[in-house]
Amino acid sequence: MSLRSNRDDLPFQEGDTVVVGLSGGADSVCLTHWLRENFPGLRLAACHINHQLRGEESDRDERFVEAFCEQEQIPLYRETVSVRERAKALCLSEEECGREVRYAFFEETAQKLEQKMDGRVWIATAHTQTDQAETVLFRLARGSALKGLCGIPPVRGRIVRPLLGASREEIEAYCTEHGLSYVTDSTNLSCGYSRNRIRLQVLPELSRINHAAVQHIAKTAGLLAEDEEFLQRCALDAYHRVLQGDQLDIQQLLREPMAMRRRALALWLSQWKVQVFSSRIEELMRLCHTGGQVQYKSSLMIRKRGRFLEAVSPEKEEPYFEFLLKDGIFESPTGESYKIQTLDTNPSRFVQKIYKNVFDILIDCGKISGSIMIRQRRPGDMIRLPYRKCTKSVKKLFSEEKISHWERSRRFVLADRQGVIGVEGFGADERVCCDKRTTKAVAICWLKGIRQDDEG
Amino acid sequence: MSLRSNRDDLPFQEGDTVVVGLSGGADSVCLTHWLRENFPGLRLAACHINHQLRGEESDRDERFVEAFCEQEQIPLYRETVSVRERAKALCLSEEECGREVRYAFFEETAQKLEQKMDGRVWIATAHTQTDQAETVLFRLARGSALKGLCGIPPVRGRIVRPLLGASREEIEAYCTEHGLSYVTDSTNLSCGYSRNRIRLQVLPELSRINHAAVQHIAKTAGLLAEDEEFLQRCALDAYHRVLQGDQLDIQQLLREPMAMRRRALALWLSQWKVQVFSSRIEELMRLCHTGGQVQYKSSLMIRKRGRFLEAVSPEKEEPYFEFLLKDGIFESPTGESYKIQTLDTNPSRFVQKIYKNVFDILIDCGKISGSIMIRQRRPGDMIRLPYRKCTKSVKKLFSEEKISHWERSRRFVLADRQGVIGVEGFGADERVCCDKRTTKAVAICWLKGIRQDDEG
Repeated sequence: MSLRSNRDDLPFQEGDTVVVGLSGGADSVCLTHWLRENFPGLRLAACHINHQLRGEESDRDERFVEAFCEQEQIPLYRETVSVRERAKALCLSEEECGREVRYAFFEETAQKLEQKMDGRVWIATAHTQTDQAETVLFRLARGSALKGLCGIPPVRGRIVRPLLGASREEIEAYCTEHGLSYVTDSTNLSCGYSRNRIRLQVLPELSRINHAAVQHIAKTAGLLAEDEEFLQRCALDAYHRVLQGDQLDIQQLLREPMAMRRRALALWLSQWKVQVFSSRIEELMRLCHTGGQVQYKSSLMIRKRGRFLEAVSPEKEEPYFEFLLKDGIFESPTGESYKIQTLDTNPSRFVQKIYKNVFDILIDCGKISGSIMIRQRRPGDMIRLPYRKCTKSVKKLFSEEKISHWERSRRFVLADRQGVIGVEGFGADERVCCDKRTTKAVAICWLKGIRQDDEG
Repeated sequence: MSLRSNRDDLPFQEGDTVVVGLSGGADSVCLTHWLRENFPGLRLAACHINHQLRGEESDRDERFVEAFCEQEQIPLYRETVSVRERAKALCLSEEECGREVRYAFFEETAQKLEQKMDGRVWIATAHTQTDQAETVLFRLARGSALKGLCGIPPVRGRIVRPLLGASREEIEAYCTEHGLSYVTDSTNLSCGYSRNRIRLQVLPELSRINHAAVQHIAKTAGLLAEDEEFLQRCALDAYHRVLQGDQLDIQQLLREPMAMRRRALALWLSQWKVQVFSSRIEELMRLCHTGGQVQYKSSLMIRKRGRFLEAVSPEKEEPYFEFLLKDGIFESPTGESYKIQTLDTNPSRFVQKIYKNVFDILIDCGKISGSIMIRQRRPGDMIRLPYRKCTKSVKKLFSEEKISHWERSRRFVLADRQGVIGVEGFGADERVCCDKRTTKAVAICWLKGIRQDDEG
């Protein structure tokens, strides 16, 4: 039984701390209990987020988790987040947003504990064989290369999934055996979510064809992960064979087998911070044969020149731009998209902490003079970044950060009547930062950073 | 549109002949017409098998195909086979048996045409994107490593699948556009078959999650095939690194990444003619660490000795054995399984031709003296094989074919009162071969050779 047999595969050491994501469902209750039983040398902590998606049921779950942790004497960290509102604000589905919020809170808690504890701090989530099979099928339907079919990794960074080999039956048997009670999420039974559709319709149908289908799919994902790891390692070598400075040598590329060609192109695209889709890889492969050029964002064009693929800026210098800042989606000349949104409330400490890399710029409306302009940098622009504690010219800032000359004319600057209040990629000026007394704010949220994978 | 765009990927040359598998359904009607339109330089022939599984409907399909071929002036080769009976006789499902029969007939027809025609002879089947997606999901449910998820290959040997990238919609649109009529197989709509279950339940559900799911899955299969091809090539190198004579060097093996370890073990197992399952690979991996031995067939044992894995025979010499031949399953001391069956009819020309490598030995009951014994070889045993046209000792036959000393005592011999009438792996003696006048026969059918893959 995998719950018994996988003990030795886990990276925990005596004295480490494990933060368990505890929803109160069978999986996470089982995980918490199992860790406590099988790793007496670990310190456990639990994290619970009340997503406020299911009204009284959400509160019931929170109370259940509270009672469970008290009984098991496990410290509980919890947070209440209105996922529905946040999802709307961030243009995410509720599923995606819930995932964002969860992992951010787990990570925040882990970092807090890291300050206090000796030993390493891990995050454990209760993903099971079923979650793994769902992920594989979901990605198959959505379109995927090998990498996507590897599913959820058992260990990634500090995140560990000890139940990834365990079946629903094993978990229920474990709960029964140890007299554990748990709550049931009523939305697990609705077909509204894609994942539930797979769980409730597709997996049962496949299990009729082969009763061990879920187990087989989860196992396949593990095998594929080994293959992908090997291919990635080979691809790095291939990439260095075809790379010539910043360019790709097409002749060399075409000497590589297809599996390497695609991956080398993907590695090259990531170097230019272009998101990799299989359609883009195919576009580049056509380019190698036919010549021509493709543009991926306003800041980047890929073209064939002689025997090379090269990445260039479409034009030398961006013409001067200046607009009044207003709510909506804004595509910066750098090619990045931002969601601009006025919040008629204090953006809580929580929002600022979690989204420090998402809400690139958060501005206290009460501190600005006149209206906010979004414009190109001008000579003489100065900024004081709160985390740098010194005032310097935007030009110097760009130069220190090795922003290319070309990109400097594309990065936007935010300014009010008194001068610069924010710079794309760097954040807000100290003068306009939010604090406890803020009652109205503008959030400029980078949209690309939040499309994460769908590990659940 | 893939029907238009894949013309150049096909291996056909002017003057080649293509044998099209023509059921009369939309896919194969479209394929035949499309080949004729797009490759005017090809000679076309059609093959139709009446499987007799659907009564009058099967006959209707045959008449439809006949009329279609006459109208299109394509020579038609056809055969009627009772798949239900044959499946029972061969311990196969009707799906598997139907596939066996089809490919055997296609191949037979292609070989016939090869004698008459200049140019290469190809076999074209009408598998589509949907068949591809079904195959991938079917194998996922059944359990599969990367290789299985590559699905149906677009070209394998002389078999070509020009429609593998085409969707159901494209095919129907093609038929409408060209005013082509076709028949519909009523069993396609029943959930009795696993494949129909995938087609009718799983794929529609996945298409609700992503409308292009079928296309995505088919495309993924193509990408995975490229990866698998690369991995296989690397694995051959890895295999030669870890191979020492006939043994596997465990230390070397454990230096290889997992993706290579598994494949090197699989290559080694195939060398010993052991069927490769992932459970066996895992068993061998455990063996590398824990030591011990496993036996895969009565003729082969794999064990760890020092730093090597080696394949040995469990014992030196098989003790003498002799039984009366009777209907049922017989496991030869070589580890191979045979189905022995008395047929109260003439085993038609067709059976003999198709199953020449499956019905290893076919004996005319009217030509034997007394009863048939199945026994170990004895000194002095002689046989006259019809395809060798000379009488020789079984000892010499084994020696010529380099059968190991060890295996010689395990191969069975069939004998009647007058002497040897057949030898395992070589077939029947000329004296007892079936002919037109045969009315009763014994078939000794090798069961391992007929488990083919499930390409449909």
